[in-house]
Amino acid sequence: MEKYTIEVSFSPALFPYRLTKDNYITVIVDILRATTSICAAFSNGVKEIVPVPSTEIAREYKQKGYLVASERDGHVLDFADFGNSAFNFMTEEVRGQSIVYSTTNGTKAIEMAKDSEQIVIGSFLNLNALAKWLSEQNRNVLILCAGWKNKFNIEDSLFGGSLTEALLMYEKFEVKCDSAIAAHDLWELAKVDVLGYIEKAAHRHRLKRLGLDDVLEYSFSADSSKVIPVFDGFSIVDKA
Amino acid sequence: MEKYTIEVSFSPALFPYRLTKDNYITVIVDILRATTSICAAFSNGVKEIVPVPSTEIAREYKQKGYLVASERDGHVLDFADFGNSAFNFMTEEVRGQSIVYSTTNGTKAIEMAKDSEQIVIGSFLNLNALAKWLSEQNRNVLILCAGWKNKFNIEDSLFGGSLTEALLMYEKFEVKCDSAIAAHDLWELAKVDVLGYIEKAAHRHRLKRLGLDDVLEYSFSADSSKVIPVFDGFSIVDKA
Repeated sequence: MEKYTIEVSFSPALFPYRLTKDNYITVIVDILRATTSICAAFSNGVKEIVPVPSTEIAREYKQKGYLVASERDGHVLDFADFGNSAFNFMTEEVRGQSIVYSTTNGTKAIEMAKDSEQIVIGSFLNLNALAKWLSEQNRNVLILCAGWKNKFNIEDSLFGGSLTEALLMYEKFEVKCDSAIAAHDLWELAKVDVLGYIEKAAHRHRLKRLGLDDVLEYSFSADSSKVIPVFDGFSIVDKA
Repeated sequence: MEKYTIEVSFSPALFPYRLTKDNYITVIVDILRATTSICAAFSNGVKEIVPVPSTEIAREYKQKGYLVASERDGHVLDFADFGNSAFNFMTEEVRGQSIVYSTTNGTKAIEMAKDSEQIVIGSFLNLNALAKWLSEQNRNVLILCAGWKNKFNIEDSLFGGSLTEALLMYEKFEVKCDSAIAAHDLWELAKVDVLGYIEKAAHRHRLKRLGLDDVLEYSFSADSSKVIPVFDGFSIVDKA
């Protein structure tokens, strides 16, 4: 039986050079923080999330009455209801609501991945539920790491490795590309103490400086959630 | 004392997003096979190597009387004296000669790196000599992996990690970026059995298919050479 492939793009800048071009699902990953927050939101019963590319567009949605999550450089914008931290999406207030989420990188990633059969949101929160769901789709899997300003980052790459590991438990998958091999190996190295390992990552230091360190432990807690957030062309909804 | 930074670009496609922008030396890496072959050539007393971007330009140089190394998809071109394997540069015939070397990726990498203070060629062959030389330059170091068609590849990344390790022996260097951390960790994982590890790499399978497997062991033999091949604006010469 022909197997389905797993590939990891370490950065949106590498996505155009992927080997996976046909019959594939793109898993978008931005552990710190967009995709963790999105999974947290659906775990908490949020109805839909509308990703928008700029704070200006987020502001227009606010005027139409939407709840809006929008921040720049770690600071909540004045017109917004809250920022992008996962904890903001775990309140009573947002349950059952539509939320507009301002994310330049996230929207770019969705735009890039529009040729794939489906676009789904991955984080450590829904890791194994996502792997199981992917195994039922009978398609190749492309894991697209948001990275940090188009640079390789450790937290997204580790997730790429952990999802690769989880998918390989299903015999229908195989790895052919070096980046998935490397991500998998880094994950093997890190998984005994993920937070200790991530301590080394450059991005964590940035988050610390911005006082956003509190969400870290939560961001690396595997399998607290079974959500499958899928982009349907306009918004993200939970297909679990 | 302010330390000099080490950064790894896993692919030319990531180079524009590097953090290192000032006072830096670019180390170009293409383990299979260009930079290994270039180091082998200078170890054997080749006088200079002129990198050219296409087989057409290589042909013009041949008509001017140069020795020419040129291949496409692993096959020596009819007008060329030999292909790009390191073993071709280790003969009596090439000693003391100028050689034109046709390399699309290599020439592109040199062009990209033209804002750096110096461009030097790295491979496992000259690993520790290169680290020592770099430590004497008092500049930041950017390790530019050629990758494979702009994709991440394991062999260049492992070299990035091993050079990072060697540089960190000199206390004047530090690592701030996730890619150098990841490369270093992959190297730690691989170094007990590099050939065994590289066995997993996609590119190796390609080389096997092309019958170019013989040069592998040589390509990963550390420190057989003390050459410092530096690009001087026209050609590469040994500054050791």
